[in-house]
Amino acid sequence: MPFQRIAIVGCGLIGGSFALALKKRGFSGEIIGCDRDEVLEKARARGAIDSGTAELSEAVAIADLVYLATPVVTILDLLPQVAKAAKAGAHVTDAGSTKVRVCRMAQEVLPENVTFLGGHPMAGREVSGIENADADLFVGAKYILIPPVTSHESRVTSDQSQEFVDWTKKLGAEPVWIDAETHDWAVALVSHLPQLLSTALASAVWDETDEDGLPLSLAGPGFRDLTRLAASPYEIWRDIGLTNGDNIARALDRLEQRLAHIRTLLRSRDLAEEFEKAQQTCAMLKRGGKE
Amino acid sequence: MPFQRIAIVGCGLIGGSFALALKKRGFSGEIIGCDRDEVLEKARARGAIDSGTAELSEAVAIADLVYLATPVVTILDLLPQVAKAAKAGAHVTDAGSTKVRVCRMAQEVLPENVTFLGGHPMAGREVSGIENADADLFVGAKYILIPPVTSHESRVTSDQSQEFVDWTKKLGAEPVWIDAETHDWAVALVSHLPQLLSTALASAVWDETDEDGLPLSLAGPGFRDLTRLAASPYEIWRDIGLTNGDNIARALDRLEQRLAHIRTLLRSRDLAEEFEKAQQTCAMLKRGGKE
Repeated sequence: MPFQRIAIVGCGLIGGSFALALKKRGFSGEIIGCDRDEVLEKARARGAIDSGTAELSEAVAIADLVYLATPVVTILDLLPQVAKAAKAGAHVTDAGSTKVRVCRMAQEVLPENVTFLGGHPMAGREVSGIENADADLFVGAKYILIPPVTSHESRVTSDQSQEFVDWTKKLGAEPVWIDAETHDWAVALVSHLPQLLSTALASAVWDETDEDGLPLSLAGPGFRDLTRLAASPYEIWRDIGLTNGDNIARALDRLEQRLAHIRTLLRSRDLAEEFEKAQQTCAMLKRGGKE
Repeated sequence: MPFQRIAIVGCGLIGGSFALALKKRGFSGEIIGCDRDEVLEKARARGAIDSGTAELSEAVAIADLVYLATPVVTILDLLPQVAKAAKAGAHVTDAGSTKVRVCRMAQEVLPENVTFLGGHPMAGREVSGIENADADLFVGAKYILIPPVTSHESRVTSDQSQEFVDWTKKLGAEPVWIDAETHDWAVALVSHLPQLLSTALASAVWDETDEDGLPLSLAGPGFRDLTRLAASPYEIWRDIGLTNGDNIARALDRLEQRLAHIRTLLRSRDLAEEFEKAQQTCAMLKRGGKE
């Protein structure tokens, strides 16, 4: 039986985009939003949801697919309630930015007649909210999925899980299977570290900027590239810091080592090696894989 | 007498773009390129220059405007030769990325019958070379000009200087007058620091990336924004490190302080303040000035 009703819990950028994308790609069932009333109103106005409720159990009780798209700590808070409300045979998934604690919690609290896949669409942006939701947000993006630890061999444990994975493809994303620990270290490096660097740079330059606007008024396209992420909402990042702090601290260590190395080489020819390594990263990003 | 002949010394991204921009905006005199033969050939093929020579003195001797667009240390090397070859009444300017040492050298070596303005178009890119030159590179860019220290009161010291300043405007740039020390500290913060951060991030993630491409293969648009500058050619940055090392080290200090602060706040609500400061920077970049 294909999904008839999908509950979107948290109708912000990711949840709202998922809902819009489902409708654009032909989902013909009902989409039930769960969020604060003013968000639901906007989501309805944008055509993302068919109905809405601020009451989690109401939305979850009738859903074949429950899509949790709130910040991570809220997902941790909601999972026990989802476990109580979910109907037999439902599939639950989340779009949280860190995965170890979410997957562990899901395994602990969800009943056996409910399936779960942890997920993380790599499609974040520096803007947030239903206002910025986009039916094409997932096109070309990697959609990370965490194989359930209890069934290592078969990565997809049910027809419902398979149907959800198929939907990520229909939405234009590329599913990528990684275990939760590997995911959390990887995103500490390629997602959380860039965010904090961007924030640190913007904050450092803000401290140095005088009433005439110098030096910020001289910023060119390079500085703008580096500080685009700095506009990101704190709410999401608070939860990332809380649930992935150890990995982020380790990633900061790695970066500080590179910076210290660069500082000692500032007036030396050996700085070329650091640039070469960095250029290989850029080349690999263009090419899409390490040689 | 308006400029009849302009010598472009160094026909790479900036020099080549300046030449193309002059032609596009109606300069009807002769443009003489000075560079290696293979670069001159490409510059001629692109229509950037009318004639070319690898011999500096040949190009400079007949020029009304000498535009030095090589890396900074080369500018320092060339200025004494320019001083010998320049004709009376010529105007000399440079597009080097740091200004204290260039302006000091120019003041020391150039004869009194030659005028000089240090300059820095804030229009760099992560690509280089005549292949990437663009007649519109300066459109909307700030063009920093360093007022000569010997005549603080009148910022433009000659008709030739004024004609050059007028050309920066015709090319679509906005001239901004700042003294050399202020410039070098400002660009350490908004240009050199972002470059080195981008290089450090790309290099750190390269070190961690395994044969399967993880974690780099998971990089999204945020990581790409942060590492775009990391593709920059080392040659330019070697000279920036050599001529602005103290300011860059100070800027790295400021950043490391912010990172250390962020690290201690990773699991704390107080991280919000750091995000707020950073968001103000982004807002000011959008708005174009501090409140």
